[in-house]
Amino acid sequence: MLSRLSPLAQRTISPRLLSNAQRTLVNISYPSPKIAVLELDRPPVNSLSLEMSAKIVESIKEIESNPEVQAMVLKSSNPKIFSAGLDITEMNRPTVARLEDFWRNIQTLFLTLYSTRLSTIASIDGHSPAGGCLLAMSCDYRIMSATPSYKIGLNETKLGIAAPYWLKDLFVTTIGYREAEVGLALGKLYSPKEALEIKLVDELVDSPVIDVALKRADEWASIPEKGRVASKVMLRGAMIQDLEEKREMDVGWFRDFIMEEGVQKGIEGYLKNLSKK
Amino acid sequence: MLSRLSPLAQRTISPRLLSNAQRTLVNISYPSPKIAVLELDRPPVNSLSLEMSAKIVESIKEIESNPEVQAMVLKSSNPKIFSAGLDITEMNRPTVARLEDFWRNIQTLFLTLYSTRLSTIASIDGHSPAGGCLLAMSCDYRIMSATPSYKIGLNETKLGIAAPYWLKDLFVTTIGYREAEVGLALGKLYSPKEALEIKLVDELVDSPVIDVALKRADEWASIPEKGRVASKVMLRGAMIQDLEEKREMDVGWFRDFIMEEGVQKGIEGYLKNLSKK
Amino acid sequence: MLSRLSPLAQRTISPRLLSNAQRTLVNISYPSPKIAVLELDRPPVNSLSLEMSAKIVESIKEIESNPEVQAMVLKSSNPKIFSAGLDITEMNRPTVARLEDFWRNIQTLFLTLYSTRLSTIASIDGHSPAGGCLLAMSCDYRIMSATPSYKIGLNETKLGIAAPYWLKDLFVTTIGYREAEVGLALGKLYSPKEALEIKLVDELVDSPVIDVALKRADEWASIPEKGRVASKVMLRGAMIQDLEEKREMDVGWFRDFIMEEGVQKGIEGYLKNLSKK
Repeated sequence: MLSRLSPLAQRTISPRLLSNAQRTLVNISYPSPKIAVLELDRPPVNSLSLEMSAKIVESIKEIESNPEVQAMVLKSSNPKIFSAGLDITEMNRPTVARLEDFWRNIQTLFLTLYSTRLSTIASIDGHSPAGGCLLAMSCDYRIMSATPSYKIGLNETKLGIAAPYWLKDLFVTTIGYREAEVGLALGKLYSPKEALEIKLVDELVDSPVIDVALKRADEWASIPEKGRVASKVMLRGAMIQDLEEKREMDVGWFRDFIMEEGVQKGIEGYLKNLSKK
Repeated sequence: MLSRLSPLAQRTISPRLLSNAQRTLVNISYPSPKIAVLELDRPPVNSLSLEMSAKIVESIKEIESNPEVQAMVLKSSNPKIFSAGLDITEMNRPTVARLEDFWRNIQTLFLTLYSTRLSTIASIDGHSPAGGCLLAMSCDYRIMSATPSYKIGLNETKLGIAAPYWLKDLFVTTIGYREAEVGLALGKLYSPKEALEIKLVDELVDSPVIDVALKRADEWASIPEKGRVASKVMLRGAMIQDLEEKREMDVGWFRDFIMEEGVQKGIEGYLKNLSKK
Repeated sequence: MLSRLSPLAQRTISPRLLSNAQRTLVNISYPSPKIAVLELDRPPVNSLSLEMSAKIVESIKEIESNPEVQAMVLKSSNPKIFSAGLDITEMNRPTVARLEDFWRNIQTLFLTLYSTRLSTIASIDGHSPAGGCLLAMSCDYRIMSATPSYKIGLNETKLGIAAPYWLKDLFVTTIGYREAEVGLALGKLYSPKEALEIKLVDELVDSPVIDVALKRADEWASIPEKGRVASKVMLRGAMIQDLEEKREMDVGWFRDFIMEEGVQKGIEGYLKNLSKK
């Protein structure tokens, strides 16, 4: 699989033998002065722990701080998984304080990525369920590998939980109200072809996706920043302001949902099944 | 035509020789513990009178009261008409009190069907204009017969009236703003193929539709209830709350529109034409 | 090219030898008692100056004042350009008073065309960028020439500026949130075929477009007015009221954006380039 990756992807891929403690969780590179690549690198599946979310936010701010940089490509170090979403161990018998803090970091991750002045291109080379789909939808443009076995979507209901209201809003703005209604209710995971049809992704290419993602980043980076950012703020400002105002309400909703005994038992069973595999 | 109906459809079909007074207006059956079938049975065309609306609401509540039931299929006893919509005789020189009460029952029908915790599957085996389209759009999923002569849509403007604001909102969330704008203005009735293209229905099958509807009901019933209902409330809650707050304003709008002499003359002419046929 | 125009188009076309001062900016004709044709006639490219906007508004009001007229076709006297959008000389080192007044007239043009009781059909026979696209989207129905070289869209960001918030809203209701997001960010100009795919236009026909536009005007004019207008108000009322309340805020936003030295330099350079050609 690695041999199929482009030179850039090979250059930014992380050494697989490091322990997680030694890893930096993400890698930043600059293929050209206007373009940054933010590579998610938390094996095995780039799941979003509190620390991983905080690290991504910190990295976006670092990239933003250079006024020359206009576009950012978001990719994965794993050639088959973009991100598997929330780290479920964060939700397994947590303390209330840690759980609330975890969720605040997920909110901040969304708010930071969704509102950045940078043009953001998701290079989705692999599975992208739940929180992985959230990361992709928070970008400005999505390119996915056409590999038919890959899946993307919000499958929360299948796990017995529900997406938060702002992720529902993001889903609606991306694929339209009607498709979002069915997709959320059934917890649908879409193939790349289905995802393209409902415009959950904008483009399909053969793996590796990164070369096309860098080309698109160049195109987005060529648009004068002032008008482009003004348009982005006009479109995304209302949703951002709404969540800013309701953050603690949303934290309470998440905490109460997850701490319920029925949901906790479901998570326990899910993790036991995983460890048996 | 009857011979083409599936066994379930034959079992729940009503004796055609009963007078309307003797009929129960709807029939409820349970093909499996998790699935209910609500059959509209007000010949000749399942038009929505005050009593018919009240009866459907009562039936949904009865089905909801059994916690085991997860999904409900809505169908018609008429093999060629799902529902012709509002009973126009309710609007022909009515008393103000009856007309207002009629409209309150239509509102309650929408609110009850649109917000039920049950997954709702519309099995649309025939024409479904105006109020028939309202019933279908209030469900979670719509399957229509592919028979090309059948029609579905909101044709109110062609009759000289207008859909209420909440039906307009429902139309917009179902098929999108732009298509709703044209469809409402022109009072368009869509063929099954056109309806599928604009996502007014989700699936086309050859008649009888009921077998596929029961299959989909099984799929929807397999999703854990808690997350599924939380998602439904998040998506539909705002529209429901809005109408709850504006019910009497909406009753006044409908009453004033219908009681106008020009509209009354139009309805009179329409009914005279019908009785000549 | 002229020989390909329909008889009506030939009849309403303006004499090309008149100076702009002698021209009336628009021409009104009535091919039938229920149908008006409003022809934009400000050579070379029907750009929207303060006077042109005011003249279009005055003409719509004149047409509306005849209760018999039900539909209006909006077309161009130029066989290759519908309208090139805002007159950029209005934004080149203007006085603040003139610039603000210019923008108020653009707002009024949008509000008048978007909310008229008339059914409005855009007959788009040529290029239609930026303000030209605004005119088209403010109508009820859009027919465009299939000529592949023609372009339509909101290309403001490519010129270093941004569309106002209400034009962004109009774009979203017309083509959906997701497509609007990409189209605005990149300042995309769509070919007729692309415009049809995203429903930015409703229909493509070979030039001349006017014959089909008049046919559609007949169809829209046949719908009873009362219900049709009630539906239009229900769908468009909120956006109209919103801008009515925020007009001066929007004038301030436009003025501050345009008067910025960087934007002024950009406009100067753009006009110098034009004059060299």
